[in-house]
Amino acid sequence: MSERFSQAEFDRRIALTRRAMEREGLDALFVTNPSNMNWLTGYDGWSFYVHQGVLLLPDGAPVWWGRRMDSFGARRTAWMSADYIRDYTDDYIQSDDLHPMETLAALFAEHGLASARIGVEKENYYFTARALEVLLEQMPQATFADATNTVNWQRTVKSDEELVVMRKAAAISTKMIEGVMERVEPGMAKNDLVAEIYRDAIQGVDGAWGDYPAIVPLVPSGEDATAAHLTWDGRPFETGEATFFELSGCHRRYHAPFCRTVFLGTPSDRVLRTEAALIEAIEAGLDAARPGNRAADIAIALKSTLLRHGIERPGRAGYAVGLSYPPDWGEHTVSIRENDQTILRPGMTFHFMPALWMEDWGLEITETILIKDDGPAECLCHYPRKLIVKP
Amino acid sequence: MSERFSQAEFDRRIALTRRAMEREGLDALFVTNPSNMNWLTGYDGWSFYVHQGVLLLPDGAPVWWGRRMDSFGARRTAWMSADYIRDYTDDYIQSDDLHPMETLAALFAEHGLASARIGVEKENYYFTARALEVLLEQMPQATFADATNTVNWQRTVKSDEELVVMRKAAAISTKMIEGVMERVEPGMAKNDLVAEIYRDAIQGVDGAWGDYPAIVPLVPSGEDATAAHLTWDGRPFETGEATFFELSGCHRRYHAPFCRTVFLGTPSDRVLRTEAALIEAIEAGLDAARPGNRAADIAIALKSTLLRHGIERPGRAGYAVGLSYPPDWGEHTVSIRENDQTILRPGMTFHFMPALWMEDWGLEITETILIKDDGPAECLCHYPRKLIVKP
Repeated sequence: MSERFSQAEFDRRIALTRRAMEREGLDALFVTNPSNMNWLTGYDGWSFYVHQGVLLLPDGAPVWWGRRMDSFGARRTAWMSADYIRDYTDDYIQSDDLHPMETLAALFAEHGLASARIGVEKENYYFTARALEVLLEQMPQATFADATNTVNWQRTVKSDEELVVMRKAAAISTKMIEGVMERVEPGMAKNDLVAEIYRDAIQGVDGAWGDYPAIVPLVPSGEDATAAHLTWDGRPFETGEATFFELSGCHRRYHAPFCRTVFLGTPSDRVLRTEAALIEAIEAGLDAARPGNRAADIAIALKSTLLRHGIERPGRAGYAVGLSYPPDWGEHTVSIRENDQTILRPGMTFHFMPALWMEDWGLEITETILIKDDGPAECLCHYPRKLIVKP
Repeated sequence: MSERFSQAEFDRRIALTRRAMEREGLDALFVTNPSNMNWLTGYDGWSFYVHQGVLLLPDGAPVWWGRRMDSFGARRTAWMSADYIRDYTDDYIQSDDLHPMETLAALFAEHGLASARIGVEKENYYFTARALEVLLEQMPQATFADATNTVNWQRTVKSDEELVVMRKAAAISTKMIEGVMERVEPGMAKNDLVAEIYRDAIQGVDGAWGDYPAIVPLVPSGEDATAAHLTWDGRPFETGEATFFELSGCHRRYHAPFCRTVFLGTPSDRVLRTEAALIEAIEAGLDAARPGNRAADIAIALKSTLLRHGIERPGRAGYAVGLSYPPDWGEHTVSIRENDQTILRPGMTFHFMPALWMEDWGLEITETILIKDDGPAECLCHYPRKLIVKP
């Protein structure tokens, strides 16, 4: 592959992770989260539907482990030499008799880890309950500690190299929302608009080809917009309905989620009052998103402003974002909510998403934000922050 | 949502699953595989990145359980009444203190399952190692049996209603490959072609809107095609390279994967000889894909034909397909490989994918096939079965 982060960047990431391993008393760390695999090694491929991972020891290069047919992809995308790429054969794929974790246990043993304390990502999508059972059967002397977000936490502050890539993703997000607002109109089939959104996403922008986003465009209308995660179908957009477009451009697996809501027709006063309250609340949140403040402060600023306008908004109002693979573009570390005491630091990036799912409609206006060295957060995407009305 | 399978179809599915539960001695079955959730209830949403599932008991409607904001989507897409939709609050999302499985344990207890034998999908992507740990902590008297593919196996023979939908997905796959072959040419950036593939996929065809496929288009060229699962970037297609396009249309979550390979320029004799051998081998495989034969017979027919031409091909040559969610469009049941003794039955559908990953190039020509009442399998997609050469 032609593009890869610098070796200094990979070295930085591994040094950070090793310090965390030391704090957690881990002899080794085995990561299965594809984002963490990529972040440590550069490995990129749609292969996370079979067992694979990266083994990090206190010294030496990380070891990529996975299915043989994917080891060729590892050689082409990860920075380590072929000595650090290990595989298992296709006999282990979806078999009743063999489990890939048997070969991983052998790899652990080869590295002297038979009775070690090994961190594994117990709450990761791609580390199944059965995977842990097999490891426990194979390695009765070992301890498997939960290290679900050990690497994720090292990812919260983005490097300059990463921010260059995220800004490109944000430019794609902006282009996608611009395309939506130009095209959406009553009578247009929803899937036809999503087809154009995808085309914009993958074409990308000048200097940034579009990668696949970790979540599909979410585009619910009217009452469907009371539900958070419905996808599309072939029905037309209708006059009198609000539709929100929650989507993200992606470049080299980095994301910048972005959402705007369109109202086709003439919105009611209630809708317009809600819009005004939400925009004021977002501005309060952005102003609180300063280095040294806590993640909670953003949520408190948002929610107290909404409450002054009579809107009670439960739930999270955002999360850390960056590098990601399906099924989620969140980093699973910092949450923008009242009880998150994480101190905001320059280089942190969040999807600030104060969506309002009302009783019979929904309003989402969101921003991907970057914590600056001082002052309020910077919004990485650029489109008017308002309810878009198309009469 | 406007489209849903008939109640008779859901009743058929649940009756099949209950017979399997009885055979496996299960008091209850908890499914987390989004495909299985959809198949039993109709639930559809991009919400599988948080804990959710469907509880099936020996009597009564299934119970949907998930995040509160997704319960609204369940009400709009699943066939059960609101009494059968249960949720947990956002406090449980990605929290260090609370785990959603605590609320599931309470739901189990409410149904008298505190010391029951409950089937769970231990090898499913969305049932994490931690999820099982929490259930075991909360319910020390219960037994959690591995029921990973209990529902999947009931899905292998498609109903007439399902085949109507799969044929629509296949029509979209055909359209996608037609679009590729019209557009691909040296110098075109790969992501620009993928943008058009996505647009074709989501636009769909007359009478069938396009849903998101469970796997992104896989489009490796040249040496990248020695690796199975690399995605795209912004580099141009080049003369003298083979590129394979493995992709699937999707309609209402049903898939019909399809692959053709294009060679830009003049292929060598070695490439053409490989092509001829592969086509002959595919025909032998299709002829062996008859009801009463075993899945193994397809693999044996394919591989023995290839071997006669001096090509040794290890690994699986296909798998059951149908309803699916990311990250995989395979059903994880029947494999087309020499040791799979499954008897082929009318209505079974497979992605017959005898890809050849050679030392420095790759050739993939695949078909989604339907086992008929008699005779060889039917191919659901329609495009000339050959290496496409664009000079």
